[in-house]
Amino acid sequence: MGELRVRSVLVTGANRGIGLGFVRHLLGLPNPPEWVFAACRDPKGQRAQELQNLASKHPNLVIIPLEVTKPASIKAAAASVGEHLKGSGLNLLINNAGMLVYKTLDAETQEDMSQVYATNTIGPLLLSQAFLPLLKKAAQGSPGSGLSCSKAAIINMSSYAGSIQDVYLWEYGQALSYRCSKAALNMLTKCQSLGYREHGILCAAFHPGWVKTDMGGTIEDKTRVTVDVSVRGMLNVISSLSEKDTGTFLDWKGKVVPW
Amino acid sequence: MGELRVRSVLVTGANRGIGLGFVRHLLGLPNPPEWVFAACRDPKGQRAQELQNLASKHPNLVIIPLEVTKPASIKAAAASVGEHLKGSGLNLLINNAGMLVYKTLDAETQEDMSQVYATNTIGPLLLSQAFLPLLKKAAQGSPGSGLSCSKAAIINMSSYAGSIQDVYLWEYGQALSYRCSKAALNMLTKCQSLGYREHGILCAAFHPGWVKTDMGGTIEDKTRVTVDVSVRGMLNVISSLSEKDTGTFLDWKGKVVPW
Ligand SMILES: NC(=O)c1ccc[n+]([C@@H]2O[C@H](COP(=O)([O-])OP(=O)(O)OC[C@H]3O[C@@H](n4cnc5c(N)ncnc54)[C@H](OP(=O)(O)O)[C@@H]3O)[C@@H](O)[C@H]2O)c1
Ligand SMILES: NC(=O)c1ccc[n+]([C@@H]2O[C@H](COP(=O)([O-])OP(=O)(O)OC[C@H]3O[C@@H](n4cnc5c(N)ncnc54)[C@H](OP(=O)(O)O)[C@@H]3O)[C@@H](O)[C@H]2O)c1
Repeated sequence: MGELRVRSVLVTGANRGIGLGFVRHLLGLPNPPEWVFAACRDPKGQRAQELQNLASKHPNLVIIPLEVTKPASIKAAAASVGEHLKGSGLNLLINNAGMLVYKTLDAETQEDMSQVYATNTIGPLLLSQAFLPLLKKAAQGSPGSGLSCSKAAIINMSSYAGSIQDVYLWEYGQALSYRCSKAALNMLTKCQSLGYREHGILCAAFHPGWVKTDMGGTIEDKTRVTVDVSVRGMLNVISSLSEKDTGTFLDWKGKVVPW
Repeated sequence: MGELRVRSVLVTGANRGIGLGFVRHLLGLPNPPEWVFAACRDPKGQRAQELQNLASKHPNLVIIPLEVTKPASIKAAAASVGEHLKGSGLNLLINNAGMLVYKTLDAETQEDMSQVYATNTIGPLLLSQAFLPLLKKAAQGSPGSGLSCSKAAIINMSSYAGSIQDVYLWEYGQALSYRCSKAALNMLTKCQSLGYREHGILCAAFHPGWVKTDMGGTIEDKTRVTVDVSVRGMLNVISSLSEKDTGTFLDWKGKVVPW
């Protein structure tokens, strides 16, 4: 697996956790992207402090306001990114923003089910629609006929918790709304791979590992990984993806995760 | 496979299509249930005409008003069924009501995604929660330790279109909102099987075949089946389910469908 080389990438949920990890690693690559778009809900606020610090040091980092459940916000983000790119396309869209609600099966509510689905499943769909013209442009502007993430790709941050076959960590938390949203996100990824292959866009879903973030929680377990290990692993895998990998569900080590 | 014997069963979306087929077949069994609860949105309206005709001939058929996206309607339905059952439990809940919207991946909207998910995924969740006390009661009141549909079961009407592995009939219709909702329903089924095993409740997802109903459409294809063939097949399979089948995804012939 080589080093990832992309001209432009957008990461959602970029102000903390895995999203922030992606931004850091992308900026630190030997050949960093010309543009790293870090999307977050409140670019000026306290929660984006670390992104602001990074932006003051990296002129190739652009912070973009984005609330993934608001179609108008998504459209504005796509327009803003388009302006920055001045006619060139977006190579890589990383749909990373997500939320988790812990409820038991019996206590799950209509509101939580809707909200989590809106964030984790509908958000990535709408983002991909809005950025499709820029992704197509990137694919058209790249040489070669195969698919790759340096050409044009959508990476959806899913979860092994969304594996219907294995229902990972059920004992740790039932979190039905989350599991359902990620199973649906896997379906979205598969459908995107079928629909966008002809446009030269690779689509894949990832399980980042059980990662030490706010969402990942504080339980000590030998399978837990740091944001650094997770993101380095995923970027490695992402750099190596080709035609045959579109529509797959992979973990941070590149292992296929069952649906 | 033997004949299904249950004391009580509730079918949602019972006024037409596959739901109505279930009601007809259940009433026509050599040993019909003591109670067949046929839930539909508008029991008094024109769309429930066939159910009303059946009810005038079958005193064991009770029509129950139910809108599956409205928690208050679901609670009222469970209360009404509880009253009819006078202290005994409900053996079989068939979450059949569902909707399908045909849109391409690019034209899919937030509204459709939410609405289809509310109907096809959240509905079955809320129904199962509301009827859980009656299902538990049925399980407790039945002899034997294994799981079976004549004891207590939740059957979720899924679709092969919701198979992430195979994305059945993609060329026929992309229908992303539907596919995502059914993949999520499969996850719900799997989670219910894990959560409700200890209560003695079997949970399974079904693909009824590509059935000749309003939803199934009018395309002629040699794989198409009638409501009769589909429902007879599913009732046959349902009658034969045991412990080992909880949490599985089966078609109307009993064949396992991949997640
Ligand atoms: N951590 C794990 O073990 C793990 C395992 C499997 C999968 N994942 C997946 O990996 C992704 C990142 O997880 P994480 O652990 O980094 O989570 P996290 O630490 O909780 O961070 C979540 C990020 O998503 C953003 N976000 C949430 N809702 C949003 C919305 N409506 N609009 C815009 N941004 C929104 C948050 O922004 P705010 O700061 O504004 O809230 C934050 O930047 C998620 O999709 C998660 O499901 C994580
Ligand atoms: N037909 C197929 O080929 C096929 C294939 C795979 C899976 N399925 C699944 O099988 C099930 C039945 O399908 P079908 O072909 O019989 O569909 P259908 O002919 O369109 O009937 C749908 C039924 O669901 C009811 N319904 C829809 N939304 C509802 C709501 N919000 N509240 C209460 N009831 C609601 C409808 O009631 P109204 O009359 O009031 O609208 C109707 O009774 C669905 O879950 C479907 O996804 C069907």
